[in-house]
Amino acid sequence: MKQKPIEILKERLHEVSHLGATLALLQWDQEVNMPDKGADARASAISYLSAIVHNKFIEIDKDGLLTKLKKDFDNSEKKSSRKKGEKLSPSDKVIIAETWRSYEREKKLPEVFVKELAEVSSKSQSVWAEARAKDDFKIWQPWLERIVKLKRQEAKYLSYKTTPYDALLESYEPGMTTEELTHVFNDLKDFLVPFLKKIKSSQIKINSKKILGQFPIEKQVAFNEMIANKIGFDNEAGRLDKSVHPFTTNFHPTDVRITTRYRGNNVYYSIGSTIHEAGHAIYEQNLPSEHFGTPLTEAVSMGIHESQSRLWENQIGKSLSFWKYFYPRLQKEFPEPFQKLKLEEFYKIINKVEPSLIRTEADEATYNLHIILRFEIERELVEGSFEVKDLPKIWNAKVKEYFGLTVPSDKFGILQDVHWSGGDFGYFPTYALGNLYAAQFYNQLRTDIPKLDGQITKGNFGEVNKWLKSHIHQHGKTYTASQLVKKVTGEELNSRYFCEYLQRKFS
Amino acid sequence: MKQKPIEILKERLHEVSHLGATLALLQWDQEVNMPDKGADARASAISYLSAIVHNKFIEIDKDGLLTKLKKDFDNSEKKSSRKKGEKLSPSDKVIIAETWRSYEREKKLPEVFVKELAEVSSKSQSVWAEARAKDDFKIWQPWLERIVKLKRQEAKYLSYKTTPYDALLESYEPGMTTEELTHVFNDLKDFLVPFLKKIKSSQIKINSKKILGQFPIEKQVAFNEMIANKIGFDNEAGRLDKSVHPFTTNFHPTDVRITTRYRGNNVYYSIGSTIHEAGHAIYEQNLPSEHFGTPLTEAVSMGIHESQSRLWENQIGKSLSFWKYFYPRLQKEFPEPFQKLKLEEFYKIINKVEPSLIRTEADEATYNLHIILRFEIERELVEGSFEVKDLPKIWNAKVKEYFGLTVPSDKFGILQDVHWSGGDFGYFPTYALGNLYAAQFYNQLRTDIPKLDGQITKGNFGEVNKWLKSHIHQHGKTYTASQLVKKVTGEELNSRYFCEYLQRKFS
Repeated sequence: MKQKPIEILKERLHEVSHLGATLALLQWDQEVNMPDKGADARASAISYLSAIVHNKFIEIDKDGLLTKLKKDFDNSEKKSSRKKGEKLSPSDKVIIAETWRSYEREKKLPEVFVKELAEVSSKSQSVWAEARAKDDFKIWQPWLERIVKLKRQEAKYLSYKTTPYDALLESYEPGMTTEELTHVFNDLKDFLVPFLKKIKSSQIKINSKKILGQFPIEKQVAFNEMIANKIGFDNEAGRLDKSVHPFTTNFHPTDVRITTRYRGNNVYYSIGSTIHEAGHAIYEQNLPSEHFGTPLTEAVSMGIHESQSRLWENQIGKSLSFWKYFYPRLQKEFPEPFQKLKLEEFYKIINKVEPSLIRTEADEATYNLHIILRFEIERELVEGSFEVKDLPKIWNAKVKEYFGLTVPSDKFGILQDVHWSGGDFGYFPTYALGNLYAAQFYNQLRTDIPKLDGQITKGNFGEVNKWLKSHIHQHGKTYTASQLVKKVTGEELNSRYFCEYLQRKFS
Repeated sequence: MKQKPIEILKERLHEVSHLGATLALLQWDQEVNMPDKGADARASAISYLSAIVHNKFIEIDKDGLLTKLKKDFDNSEKKSSRKKGEKLSPSDKVIIAETWRSYEREKKLPEVFVKELAEVSSKSQSVWAEARAKDDFKIWQPWLERIVKLKRQEAKYLSYKTTPYDALLESYEPGMTTEELTHVFNDLKDFLVPFLKKIKSSQIKINSKKILGQFPIEKQVAFNEMIANKIGFDNEAGRLDKSVHPFTTNFHPTDVRITTRYRGNNVYYSIGSTIHEAGHAIYEQNLPSEHFGTPLTEAVSMGIHESQSRLWENQIGKSLSFWKYFYPRLQKEFPEPFQKLKLEEFYKIINKVEPSLIRTEADEATYNLHIILRFEIERELVEGSFEVKDLPKIWNAKVKEYFGLTVPSDKFGILQDVHWSGGDFGYFPTYALGNLYAAQFYNQLRTDIPKLDGQITKGNFGEVNKWLKSHIHQHGKTYTASQLVKKVTGEELNSRYFCEYLQRKFS
């Protein structure tokens, strides 16, 4: 029997996705396992495989298969039309439309460009790590210059209407524009700046040092694995490892890897980041694996992805209910210093609001300002308003302006984040979007599950996960981010729920 | 400037090798890290990438590049000929001849066959592991039947003169034939059977239990890393991990990974296997990385590879000199039970000769009989003299005949080794060849470095490594196994030095 075109497309996508997963393994291994001297060989392997994944994806239309299906799709969208063509199910339509969208972008990039970007990004990672360790921006500068040049070129290849930044943003948050972002972020700034002033002027003093102590890493790992599993991470379909920068990667819903970083004197440092990454991983593990390879088994956007990690890390993982359940376990595992520290005090410490220099350690209230700062800088950098050599100066000036802080050296400033060294320009804004989506989703979740707090206090996360799966995870890319938010919460994306959440929590 | 054909060939080979390394990473990760539920997705990824590596390799001759170079090579070999053609350096000649040999074999295998074999072998690994854990051959049987069928098919594709086993053997030990193997193994049997009888009848009783104790795994890992580094394994260009079955894999000379398995009550169990794998790894790390991708950066054969691991594990790692250096360190790290056990007694225990059921735990004297048994069985199985269902019976009968032992259940018999489940038929004989090569090389090494024992006693392995590198490692595939043995030792491969070594050690 002749195979239907849509089935042939699915097979081709299946192969591309498994090869994409292999590329992800090369990158995961680079961060988690690779010995130092292996860096150059790894960059070459990544470069070659990137080109193959790129070419295999372009080749899905080698015989016009995708073009033909896109025509069928277009005809089926015109309700009046009765043109011949394959009958398409709703899920087939998603597959065709989303694959077409990616295909249109990808085919604009020449193979030689894909290879170069992959190799330079891979090598740049270790150069950045060295520069950060030595606190010397100059080491990294030439590599970042190469990357910025490549990303400007990428934006040109992809084409754009208003700003090259739009073209890059589209990779991480399809459908979002720089204009809309600017609008949302301005709203947010209008709230955040006076709100932070008020908090700063309050008289409450919190001594964060009370949660410090001596925490053997292996015991921390075990505690983190316990929490991750408890909240819904399936450890038979994933792993938890160590890396310099926490991240989540997925090869398939049955193999999702998270990493955490550790500090010997602060167990919460790793717990917070593990809960965050577990939130990402739970999303990936709950994508429908029967459609693997197609957009039905892909996350909506990085912003929606981040909403899952932030919802777990903050709305749930920093709530009093959550720690009512886990704190006795933390006390038992680490009597020193927690035995004599009251739950309420621990809760206040992990929720302390304070302007700080490092994004990944920022509290919920100041976090978005870190993102807005990066968004403004990377947008102008991509647009060519200034050059890489000026970055430290510009960075430090903005930190002074937004946080009132002086950056003592680049390690605490421009060198802190890994993203740009990997070519991820346009990625940062999805972190702030994630915070907004998370607050909006969580507001709905609390309405739909009135007994939520009681369940969390008992360590029962079944209903939360059921809700997240049925409302968000199981749909893959069926809806765009804005469609999904509307469908789940009845409203467009807005910062109201996030601001309300902060006000409720920190007043 | 136009690129020379040989340079284009090298570039193509470079890409194939990096993709091959990626495939090796998928397999390494499968054994070391992969969560259980990820097995099916991994098998698909391995299958797709295997096909790509296969196709990319075949494509090196897409425009007749390799064929043209092969003609230049053939002409340059005819000394009288003065035909036109590219001038080829000696190393170019090796690259062309060896690439041609592999190419001729590889192009005989259809892509669909390569994909199926890769997928079935990958899935079969976990089925075998389950069957072994449950001690139930029946679980594995249908999978092994599929693999045997595929391997018989592979031999047909590859073609052969005398026996299909020759075609498979060629993958692991190029140039070796079943006939020659039979001859060498018969010589060996003639010596081993009476020799073992003599040992058995001796009155020396050794109580192996004296080296048992309680050894925390993390401490074992640290001790093994120390030994591996000390003998020459570069841990900035490699890693040591845990897996069910110890193995070595290499992505590049700058990234070579070894694994070991551990038992809480027997630290020597992991030390022996780590030294063995480190021997493989030192070979890989010392291949000339400037020629990566070409046969000049590939090991001669699996037999020569095994000579390196066995030389380190046995000739050096089980010598009294070696333990004169390491035993005080072992005693310091694990006072219980070693503080009160004399070095000489420890030495006797780790060298105890005793017929046993498990190959990987066999002593140097009986080890080759395990291999001969497997060789005889797999040869007949591939030839179709019997079928998979009869394997346990045939296995158990041979164990009775060669070792005088009764196999209590298949876990201690047919289910013990991983090789056949991965499709590795024709691999086992290289273990015995490795023992013979090792003894022959070691004899030469001792002649060339008269002060060897003194150096080893001082923990000085620099000269050994220098000798191994200059005589063996640095040449890659410049010489065939038989050429190399002749070049290094002045003699053809023979079992004399191995038999002499056993006699010297165990008399």
